[in-house]
Order: sequence, then structure tokens, then C-alpha cells
Amino acid sequence: MFVQRTMRQAIKAHNAFASSSYSPKVLSTSFSRFYSSQLAPLDASKLEVEKSSKQKKLQANSELVFGKTFTDHMLTVEWEAGKGWGTPQIKEYGKLQLDPSAVVFHYAFECFEGMKAYKDKDGKTRLFRPDMNMKRFNRSAGRIALPSFEGEELTKLIGEFLKVDDRWIPKGRGYSLYLRPTMIGTQESLGVGASNKAMIFVIASPVGPYFPSGFAAVNLLATTEKVRAWPGGTGDSKVGGNYAPCIKPQLDANKEGFQQNLWLFGEDHQVTEVGTMNCFVYWKNEQGETELVTPALDGQILPGVTRDSILSLARQWGEFKVSERKFTMKDLVKADKEGRIIEMFGAGTACIVCPIKRIHYDGHDIHVPLDPSDKTSQAGKLTKRINDSIMDIQYGDVQGPAGWSVVV
Amino acid sequence: MFVQRTMRQAIKAHNAFASSSYSPKVLSTSFSRFYSSQLAPLDASKLEVEKSSKQKKLQANSELVFGKTFTDHMLTVEWEAGKGWGTPQIKEYGKLQLDPSAVVFHYAFECFEGMKAYKDKDGKTRLFRPDMNMKRFNRSAGRIALPSFEGEELTKLIGEFLKVDDRWIPKGRGYSLYLRPTMIGTQESLGVGASNKAMIFVIASPVGPYFPSGFAAVNLLATTEKVRAWPGGTGDSKVGGNYAPCIKPQLDANKEGFQQNLWLFGEDHQVTEVGTMNCFVYWKNEQGETELVTPALDGQILPGVTRDSILSLARQWGEFKVSERKFTMKDLVKADKEGRIIEMFGAGTACIVCPIKRIHYDGHDIHVPLDPSDKTSQAGKLTKRINDSIMDIQYGDVQGPAGWSVVV
Repeated sequence: MFVQRTMRQAIKAHNAFASSSYSPKVLSTSFSRFYSSQLAPLDASKLEVEKSSKQKKLQANSELVFGKTFTDHMLTVEWEAGKGWGTPQIKEYGKLQLDPSAVVFHYAFECFEGMKAYKDKDGKTRLFRPDMNMKRFNRSAGRIALPSFEGEELTKLIGEFLKVDDRWIPKGRGYSLYLRPTMIGTQESLGVGASNKAMIFVIASPVGPYFPSGFAAVNLLATTEKVRAWPGGTGDSKVGGNYAPCIKPQLDANKEGFQQNLWLFGEDHQVTEVGTMNCFVYWKNEQGETELVTPALDGQILPGVTRDSILSLARQWGEFKVSERKFTMKDLVKADKEGRIIEMFGAGTACIVCPIKRIHYDGHDIHVPLDPSDKTSQAGKLTKRINDSIMDIQYGDVQGPAGWSVVV
Repeated sequence: MFVQRTMRQAIKAHNAFASSSYSPKVLSTSFSRFYSSQLAPLDASKLEVEKSSKQKKLQANSELVFGKTFTDHMLTVEWEAGKGWGTPQIKEYGKLQLDPSAVVFHYAFECFEGMKAYKDKDGKTRLFRPDMNMKRFNRSAGRIALPSFEGEELTKLIGEFLKVDDRWIPKGRGYSLYLRPTMIGTQESLGVGASNKAMIFVIASPVGPYFPSGFAAVNLLATTEKVRAWPGGTGDSKVGGNYAPCIKPQLDANKEGFQQNLWLFGEDHQVTEVGTMNCFVYWKNEQGETELVTPALDGQILPGVTRDSILSLARQWGEFKVSERKFTMKDLVKADKEGRIIEMFGAGTACIVCPIKRIHYDGHDIHVPLDPSDKTSQAGKLTKRINDSIMDIQYGDVQGPAGWSVVV
């Protein structure tokens, strides 16, 4: 009796703080309810569109800045525990109105995706491997106890959004409409538990080429004092909490003249990521093989869509060894001394590939070769070939693997 | 020339993505501007108060739930790069209106504090060690490149806020008004860099005793698969990103009947924190000394105000050894087998102390003694003594060390 009574007290007391009125039993029920198939699924056929009466002025292609100007509309859909997904809406782009107690402001219940919509030569709108983004978006949401959703439905909704804001998709190779699907927890209560409300919103920003006049390679500061991700953490999820802690080290690197951090991990200084990009090295390895290598998806590395696409293409080419495995700064330093590094680049949706020319590590510089025959652009030959090959598929000029370039 | 041009390109290209229009040089300037004393400081004398025309109905003390009901007003103050802090405002509690591109939604630019206001027997309002909260709030903000502020000014502003919402501070031992100072990055642009705008808001929620009818000890699941914090991470900062990733493990623990996770670190399974609390063990150590031990502030442990207060009081008592040092699950298992564990508890603002009675680890249970002579309450004698001593000071019944209980 005593134990039972105090157990109830414990539950009551803890849940008052930990998760409003959930007891472990109720929690377990709620948990299954959150993910139950009886809840309303995300359903694109329920879409409501209310077009904006105003049309903002389009910017000239030359004036586009990443993520600063947004289109006339946005896509939103809300979720509630015990009910599921509500009515998707496309409406005028505008402020979100959220209670100051909304858990997104306090406990970082937030995850996102980065994707782009491209205009092909026939004027059709294309997405690049949206299924990969939807899969990762769902996995990120699950990692922070936000609800799952039907990925194909969200892709359909994004397709509708792109029709409504079609005039905002810039034309021309290198130009695209950057899409930012975001999920936030909107529970209006400070209890530290699963959010009982959530929202997906998608906003869109026209962007120009990452390198407007030829590749420009970057200098990296190999960063040991701060760590981006760790085993049992969230490095493989695109959650908000991965980003803010990297800004201070980024500013510190900028102050010393480096554009990005090279994130390392562990006592052996394993190479993990570059700024917000995956990291690739093209070299002669210690066995004398020509190899393209990137860190394996060990739980700490973001499973980049561009990363996966590069690996697929390179394997398809079959011209050199392609590896996903651990490598360390010691390996890089040795390869540099022995003149075995051929190229290095970061990879991500924003740039596709971003050539690296120098890494400052432990008081020394590693110099990465570029293509000396190219007088207009700082990038190695493989880097450029990868960039062109992916862009060809993104803009529909070349037929890529099935499902890579999707007309919406 | 070539290098210079491409360097400019690199800067332009990267900053388009990385931080809007900042070049490394500008960034460095901006960085100092962010923290320059020439910017407008946070100034409580500028406060503007616009009282709400409505008064919400107060809840009965028995109905209070942590963080669910908020007072009539909120305190807000905005910050802008190059300008500094604006006009603090106390106004009607209501929704925040934020652009969907605001960086708080994407990159977790958010940190917070938890504090309580207490009514003493003379009807005066008291805060407990607010200087500690302000210091930590500033440090958390700095870790994610949010602006610093004048801590004493924010304490003054909170004092004014408490005057305006005085009727919301519940009376009675164990009752208090929970305060949630929060800082968010509000830059309206997706560039991954320091936020050029920020906001502090403070909201308040009346709360009752964590244990309304005597202590109820908790069962913990020692968690190895997921890890709360890491060297070079943010475990010692109260940033939002530390919280959402802990919810899935918490739900998993709840499903198995445990109230909280015991967070471990490293191959040797060092004990770090309990749920969202610091962790204390009171035992006979291997040298036969009676010792109160808590993990040292090694960069991964949140520097709790309650943690620090417990250490100070225990050192002042001088009756047993007080240590801040590493200890592992192996140490706990051994102590359990040898019958050396006397008490264990979590410590935090919400509960002060939360007794622990069982830890499930590696297939076995560690049973922590409670006070068998106490038939109404599940807690050890030291746990109860610490709770009472801190509460005595919080409610002004006992004069604590200078600056601990501050009348506002």
C-alpha cells in the first residue's frame, strides 16, 4: 500500500514537471497514439489554398541572396496528439503566431530539410530526390519525439506550393528555389516531454549559384576544442540543436581568416564534416589506389542527399575506388607530405560541391591541389565533374537514375 | 591578383550561405560590435509598462500544474546587432509574432533559465540567487553567439514584472511563481551565422510543491545508448538543443516504468545527470569516509544553482566530506553490493531535491536506501535536511548566505 501510494505520488509529482499530466502508463499510451495509424495521416488531398492578394516584386537573378527573400506564400499543416495531421494550407507568407511557452522556443523541438526546385529547359519544375529528404525529415522528427508523416504526401503538397509560387522559381543554370520544410513542436506548456502539438511549415527562397563566377576554394580551420556531434547524440539528424553551437567556433575561425570549420572527432581526430557540409577526399590512398573517401554514416554524420548522390555516381562511373570509412587528420597530414592528396571538397544542397584548398591543423597547413590548368575557377577536375553531373540531372538535361529528378 | 579575386569570390559565395552579407573581415567587426560597450546596454530604467485590461482568473493552489498557466503579463526586450538592447516592455501575455525564417525555428538559437519567486511570511517577494541565473544565462547565450546583457538590469526588470503580476505569486510553503527567462535569435534569414536580432522574454507560471504529499522517490533507467552531453558540446549551457534529444530516451524509459534517465558518459559509464537534474550520491566511499559527491563541472555538467547551493551548505555544515569529482556506475554497483550507499537524489530548481530509490543498470537493480523511520515520505535524512534548509532560505524564514535570498 505504502509503495503503491508513494509510487502514485512519484508519478504525479514527476509528471507535473516532466510531461504535464502523463503517468508512465498514460505516457506509454500517448506514445503509441502519437504514432498510431488510426490518427489522421498527412493527406495532400485535403489541401486548402488561399492565394495572397498581393504579389511581392521579384528580385533580379543577380540580386538573390540565400534565404533572405521569400515567396508570396507558405505551406503549413498542424498536428495534434490523439488527432493526427490537420488540413494542409497554402496561404500568404507571414508571421507565425506562437505562445511564448511553445516548446520550440525552450527545448529546440525543431528539425528541417533543405531542398531545391529547378526549372528545366522546357519550363517544367523539378525536385532532386525528394524521397531522400522526406525520409530524413521523418527520421529527424522521430529523434526528437516529433510526429511522423507521410513523405509522399508532403512531396505532393510541396508540388502544389511550387505551382502557386511558380513565378518565383528563377530560370537559368545554377538558379533555383530553395525550399525549407521545417517541423516545430508547438505545445503551449513548459513540461519537458513529447510535444502534444506540432506544425510543419515550408517556406521558399529564390537563390543563385553558390559560385557566381567560377569555383572559389575555401580555407578550413581544423577544430578540436568544440565538437559538432558524438555517439548517442544527434549528428545524423537534421535537428536545430546541431547548428547554433557551431556558430561560435565558426566566428572564431572567420576571425582568423578561415571560411569554415573542419569538424573533427575523437582523440585520433577523425575527419567528420566541413561547416554544414559532408566532407570528401580524393587521393592516392596508402595502398596506392585512387580513392574517393567520405566518413561512414556511423550515427554522427549527416546522411546528405548530395553525399549519397556523389557516392552513387562515382560508383556508377567505376573509375576509382569509392569508400565510406573513417579517416583521420594523421592520414591527411601523411598524404599531404607524400603528395597523395588530389582533391578535397565539401558537399551539400546549397553548393553541391565546395572545393577546399587549405586546412590549418595543429599549427601547420595542408595544401590541397586544385586544377592548375583552370585559370578561371578554383576546383579540381573531379570536383567539377561531380558538380556538372549532378547539375545536369537536377536541371533535367541528363536522365539520372530513377527517381532522382522528379517533375512536380 | 588571381588569388585575391577568387578569395573575394570565396568570401562572397560562402557568406551568401553562411551569414548573409558578412565577409570574414566584416564578421570580425560585427563580432566585436555585438559585444561592444558602445552598444545600448540593457537598461531597466527604460522600462515601459502597459498593463493588461483583463485579469485572468487565478487558479486554486491545489490546481497548479508546472508551466501550464501563465500570468497576465510578460516581459520582453529586443536586441539588434549594431544597436544593442532596446526598450524593455511589460505588456499583456500573448503570442509572439515571428517570421517563419526566424533562426530560432531552424538552428535552435535559444537558451533559458528557470527561477522561482517566493512570498515570505511578511508578504515580500524573494528571488533565490538570481545573480547565479543571470551569470549562467549570459554564458549560455555566449555559447550560441547570442548577445550578452547586464544581469543586474534583467534582475531589476524581473522585479518590476513581479510587482505587476504580484497577485499571481502563490502563498504558502512549497508554492512559488516559476519564472522562465528565455533568449531567442530572431534574425529573419536562413544564413547559418550569428543572429543579427535577438529577444529576451520572461514568462511566469504559478507552481505548487513538486511533492505535494511527502517525498516520492524515483526509479531511474541508466542510459547508455543515448548521451546527453560531450566534451566540446553544450552540456554546461542551458541551451534548448540539450533538451529535445533527451525526450525519446525519456519516453523509452517511461515505457519500461522508469520516471527518469540516469545519463552516463564514456566507456567507463560515468554518472552525469538525472533527467534534467544534477545528481548527488551520499555514501561511505571506498576509503570509509562519509561523503556527498556530485560530478565535477567538467564542461558537460549543467552548473545548477541548486547544485551549488547544496555544496555550499554541506561544506558549511562541515559534517562529512563534500566532493565534486567523477564517479562511475562501477563505483555505484560496488558500493551497492557493499551496502555503502546511504542516499541518492537529483537536484534542480523545480524540485530542489528528488530522492532516488532504484537504478536499473546492465540488467540489475541498484537499491538506494530511504529513511525507514519515515512512514509518510520516501526520502533519506540528508535529502530532507537539504530540502528544508534551502526552502527555509528561499522563503526568508532563515537568513542564508549573503545574496541568496533577495527581496525584489
